[in-house]
This record gives sequence, structure tokens and C-alpha cells, in this order.
Amino acid sequence: MIYFDNSATTKPYKEVLESFLTVSSEYFGNPSSLHSIGGQAERLLTQARDQVAKLLKVRPAEIYFTSGGTESNNMAIKGAAQLNRNKGRHIITSSVEHASVLAVMEQLSGEGFDITYLPVDQNGRVSVDDIDKAIRKDTILISIMQVNNEVGTIQPIAEIGELLKKHPNILFHVDSVQAIGKVSLSLYKNRVDFCSLSAHKFHGLKGTGVLFVREGARLAPLLSGGNQERKMRSGTENVAGFVALAKALRITMGKSELGITNMKKIQSSLRKELNEIEGVNIHTPLEGAAPNILNFSLEGIKSEVFIHALEQEGVFVSTTSACSSKKKSPSKTLLAMGIAEKLADSSIRISLTFDNTEEEARAVITAIKKCANQLRKVMK
Amino acid sequence: MIYFDNSATTKPYKEVLESFLTVSSEYFGNPSSLHSIGGQAERLLTQARDQVAKLLKVRPAEIYFTSGGTESNNMAIKGAAQLNRNKGRHIITSSVEHASVLAVMEQLSGEGFDITYLPVDQNGRVSVDDIDKAIRKDTILISIMQVNNEVGTIQPIAEIGELLKKHPNILFHVDSVQAIGKVSLSLYKNRVDFCSLSAHKFHGLKGTGVLFVREGARLAPLLSGGNQERKMRSGTENVAGFVALAKALRITMGKSELGITNMKKIQSSLRKELNEIEGVNIHTPLEGAAPNILNFSLEGIKSEVFIHALEQEGVFVSTTSACSSKKKSPSKTLLAMGIAEKLADSSIRISLTFDNTEEEARAVITAIKKCANQLRKVMK
Repeated sequence: MIYFDNSATTKPYKEVLESFLTVSSEYFGNPSSLHSIGGQAERLLTQARDQVAKLLKVRPAEIYFTSGGTESNNMAIKGAAQLNRNKGRHIITSSVEHASVLAVMEQLSGEGFDITYLPVDQNGRVSVDDIDKAIRKDTILISIMQVNNEVGTIQPIAEIGELLKKHPNILFHVDSVQAIGKVSLSLYKNRVDFCSLSAHKFHGLKGTGVLFVREGARLAPLLSGGNQERKMRSGTENVAGFVALAKALRITMGKSELGITNMKKIQSSLRKELNEIEGVNIHTPLEGAAPNILNFSLEGIKSEVFIHALEQEGVFVSTTSACSSKKKSPSKTLLAMGIAEKLADSSIRISLTFDNTEEEARAVITAIKKCANQLRKVMK
Repeated sequence: MIYFDNSATTKPYKEVLESFLTVSSEYFGNPSSLHSIGGQAERLLTQARDQVAKLLKVRPAEIYFTSGGTESNNMAIKGAAQLNRNKGRHIITSSVEHASVLAVMEQLSGEGFDITYLPVDQNGRVSVDDIDKAIRKDTILISIMQVNNEVGTIQPIAEIGELLKKHPNILFHVDSVQAIGKVSLSLYKNRVDFCSLSAHKFHGLKGTGVLFVREGARLAPLLSGGNQERKMRSGTENVAGFVALAKALRITMGKSELGITNMKKIQSSLRKELNEIEGVNIHTPLEGAAPNILNFSLEGIKSEVFIHALEQEGVFVSTTSACSSKKKSPSKTLLAMGIAEKLADSSIRISLTFDNTEEEARAVITAIKKCANQLRKVMK
């Protein structure tokens, strides 16, 4: 089995599961309890927060644990909109954000906010100039993803951050769910106010995530209650899950440099080999893309048919983002890049992780060639 | 060690952790993925949902998985308020709800909703008559907990449900976080629209919960995005966590009958023994309380001092709900019951689970007597 669908989800590291198990069974206390069983759990939570902060080069008080990327995105955008609705109701985002950003924008639009959806160029990239032009006096928030989940395009976060230094009142949210460990980001330098992470995208556990909230930036809480997470995110903390998240992030950051080099090599081999197959169109840009994603279409073969054929060969890839897989509508990112609907309907996303090998890549190419030939024969 | 703080959190069952581990390592796919690795995860999720539905005697389509009790409460109340704000803005609740209900009410109050907080009698119980009188033409929602988390009082859910049959337009939310497995509830018969559960209160894992949403009842989603959970709760599903939740619920319901009998016996012995200690006031009502909670005060000894002394004897109990433990303010439930602040400041909550024994209870009584004597000597 070759699993090349790591942008959908990753297999948890063994050490991550071990940490989860130890904490769940031996330190099961409620961190809010006053006794030592609670105190032990609280200390583990503090350690996990310190560790995550250190790895992201920020302060522990800026790390909020959440139930995942979707909650982090909802918490940042709804929380910022809610708290600043009397200052202004204009929000800027791009047309290629993840569903958990775009759906929130739609919801806010229904509540009287005015949303500007920026277009992208043929590489899937937003233009900083467009952002500059879109900024109004009543703009309160800009939300742009760091790496596109469907084609891997890196957005110009540093340049947007630079631009926003002239606009101290506009909050800046970056969805880094697909980027962490693969494309670096200096949160302070790039003037990021909020940044979302999801553990299961870096070999942590589903149901756990992080929202970075810069010191001084404020949000209306999405989950109110017992005032956990310094009143910003109530609910008994998933201590074992967050310890496991910290462990996954530590392993990920430790492996990152070598892993990126390795994935770049594989990505480049795959690109070269795919380019030699008749009817292949590669959508992931050659420059300015994450090292782990390669999106392409095989002309005339529907994505869904193709991924099922590849599965017969033991190769697991996807048609688009996992969240959109079942919608059967073509990738919104590809359409926004100006790719024809028919070609978008044939798109395949390969997504790698650190430990994938060139050998696996060769086997995937062999499988792609075999399936393409077979399917084309059938269709003739 | 005797852990008598099971209303704060419970130790996960061994089988629950085993299920979590198996699913996380062997079925790690994203349920939204089209390939079989995703399909396997999706099937496990479906099975977990079916199992939970069967145990709660409702339909699978009425079960929504969440990140816990706080999210379930926030999702139900905010979602119902948001969706019905044009029909009316009056909500009825009690003054002794959990923080994750009361904080949401405060937030909604700031957004133009009018909240009626019903008083309780000396047993901590709301009156159905009071609810009847509080109902207005613009009442859209009533939220009442099934079992109070601090003193164990059972609220008259069946009678409220009966009353609400005359008011088909008012939604009814029940927070059953402390009740499940200990006090039964017929969701259909009692005309409940929304019901919240939290897995770590019944030996499942932190970070997982359930919201029952009756067929036909609607909510505005709290987490928007990839439209998981039939568009009501977006975010990649914590498959392993939800399978573990189903397992915990199955074990809990299986043990429930014998467990209740056992806890009632222990509760009754504890009550008898405590009543013989000088200066003890028992706050948990003799009739109409859950079998697992016993709340009492030791006159003249501050709760915090007392629980730390008990800890030295290997006994773990709490001062109040875990969520409020660190606030250092007296229990709001006890104050609402008309108990003087000084006595409320001395309150201790014992909370049992199925497997606790009479032997443990005897040891706890011995420890309580010893600590009470020692502390009273010191204070003289």
C-alpha cells in the first residue's frame, strides 16, 4: 500500500499514540480540579503548551488548544468579526480558501458582513496589490491561507504582513493547516494575529488543533463556559490529545528539514515522469509551491474513476481536498486558476509526507501509467 | 488512592483506550476520502453513531458527534438562538445550570436576547409552575439540566416535557452530562429537542461528546466548513474518539442497573455516617437526587483546606464543579438553594462511579473524621 494522500490526513506517529495512551490512563485528571490528580494533568497541559509555543517561536500565552483546524478557523474569524462588528464589517479573503474559512465567510455575510473574495492568478496565488486595493476604512480582518490544500500554492504571507504594517487596525488570520512543517512561517515577523493548525495533518490525532492568538489580539469566544484556555476556549481540556499534539509537532519540526529535501526530490521526479505521460496537465506551480503536493489532470479520465483504478494497484491519492471529495463538484481552486471545468473534473492530488520514498514514487508512476492506459483503452 | 471525584472526570475504561488505539493506528483514514482507507474510517464512524443511537433509543440521524459537553451546550443554545432570533428572543433557563450554559446565556444576553433565570427551591429544584409562568409569546428555547453537577438534584424533565407539549414552538434543551448512565431519560417521550453528553464523564475520552438533535429540530451550525455531520458540525471527524465514546457508552449502559444499585447503597451509607459527624450539613436532597453525588459542608472548615487534608489521606474529592474549582467563589447552586455563604464555602462534593465499593466509602468516612478532628484542633 502506498498512501499518497497525506493532505487529507496522516497516520499518527507511534510515539504520539504512546503519549496519548500514557496520559489518558495514568494522568486522567481534570486540569481544573484542585487536587494533585488534577494538578498533574494541568502540568502536562502547561508543558504541552510551552513545547508548542517554543516550536512555533511564540509565547505560551499565545497558544490556544482547540478541537482542530475547522474550530481554529471558525474561532479566529467568527471571534474577530463578532468582537469588531462595531468597528467595521468588511473582511477580505481569497476565493481558494479551505471550506472552513469560506463557509464561515458565507455565514458572516448573512449576518451583515461584507466579504471581498480575491481572485487568484493561473498559479493559484493572490496578489498583494489586489489586497492593497481591496482594503477599506471598515476592513477589520484579512484571512489568507499559507498553503493551498488542493494545489499546494504558497500565498505571499510575508508580503501581506508587510503591507498590513501600515494598517495596524486590521487583523490578519493565516490558515497554516497545510503548511506547518512543510513551509516555514515567522508569525511575529509577518505580523500574523491568528494562525490555525490541525494535528492530524502532521501525524497527530484527529480532534486536536491549535489557534495562535498574538498577544494583544482579542476574540469573542466561540465556546463559552468554564473559562478554560484563559477564557478563550471553554471545555475540559483534551490533555492527552494536546500532549500528543505537542509530541507530533516536535517530531515534525525535528524531521522537517530533511523531510522537505526528500519531498522536493520526490515531487520533482513525479513531475518529470508525469510530464512524459500523454494528456497530463500539472496544476501545481513549478515555483512557490509546497514540497508535498502535486496536483494534475489526466485529460479525458474523470478523477473519481482514476483514483479507484489506482486503488486497485494499492495507491491511495485523492481527487481534491478530502472535505470536498464527496461533493462531486470540480475543485474551486482549479476553476479560480482559470482551468476549464472539464480538466478540473480530471484532477488528482498527490500529497506526500516526510517518510515517503523515491521507490514509492516510482511505483506510483508505474500505477498511473498502467491505469491511464487501461482506462483509455476501455473508453475507446 | 480513592478517587471520589467522578463528576469532574472519570478514568477511561481499558477497552475504551484499546478501541481508540486500534482505530487510530489501523483505521487512520479521513472519513471524507473517497478511497477505501477513508471508507473504512467512515464505516467505523457510522457504526459508532448507530451504536450510540441504539443506546439512547433514538435514530442515528439524530446523533451529532462534538468535542464535548461544552461544545454540545454551546451548539444547541447558540444554534437555536441564532436560527430563531427573528421568531423571538426570550430564553428560559435555571440559575443552577453548568457554566457552559450560563456563560452562553450571558453572551446571548449581550446580543439582545432576554434570559429568564429561574430560581430553585431548597433542594435545588426548579418548579414546573415557574416555567409555565415564565413562558411568553416570544419564548424560543428552554434549557434545563437533567442532574445538577454540584448537588445531584434531578430536575423535573418529564414534567417540563409534558408542559411543553402545549407549546410546540418552544425548543427544549437538556444538559444530561451528569445524568447519563445514572438517571434515565426518555428523549422522545419527554419531548426533548436537544440533549448534551460528554464522554469523559462516563469513562470515555476527553475531547468527545454528543449532541442529540431531534429529527425536525434545526440549528445554525457553530462550526462551519466541510459539512461533516450532515452540515451541522464541520471538521474532520475524530473517528477513534467517537468509536471510543460508543464503546464507553455501551459499557456504561450495560453496567448501569447494577451500578446504580451499588452507588445508592454507598450514597446511603455515606449519608448515614456523615450525619453522625458533628457540624455536617448534607446539601444533596434525600429524594430526587442522582445516586452518585453527595454534597455536604463541614461547618467552620473551608472546602479547599479540607480537600487538601483529605488528599493527604489518599482521598480525592472536590469543592464544587471542576470548572468552578479555581474561581474561589462559593457554589452558585448552594447559594441559589438558600444556603448561607459561609456554609457554602465549606462544601465538599463526593461523586461516585459504578465500581466504587463500600470498603472505599468506609475508608473515606474514616479519613473525613480524622481530618475534621485534626483541622478543628488546629483552628481552636
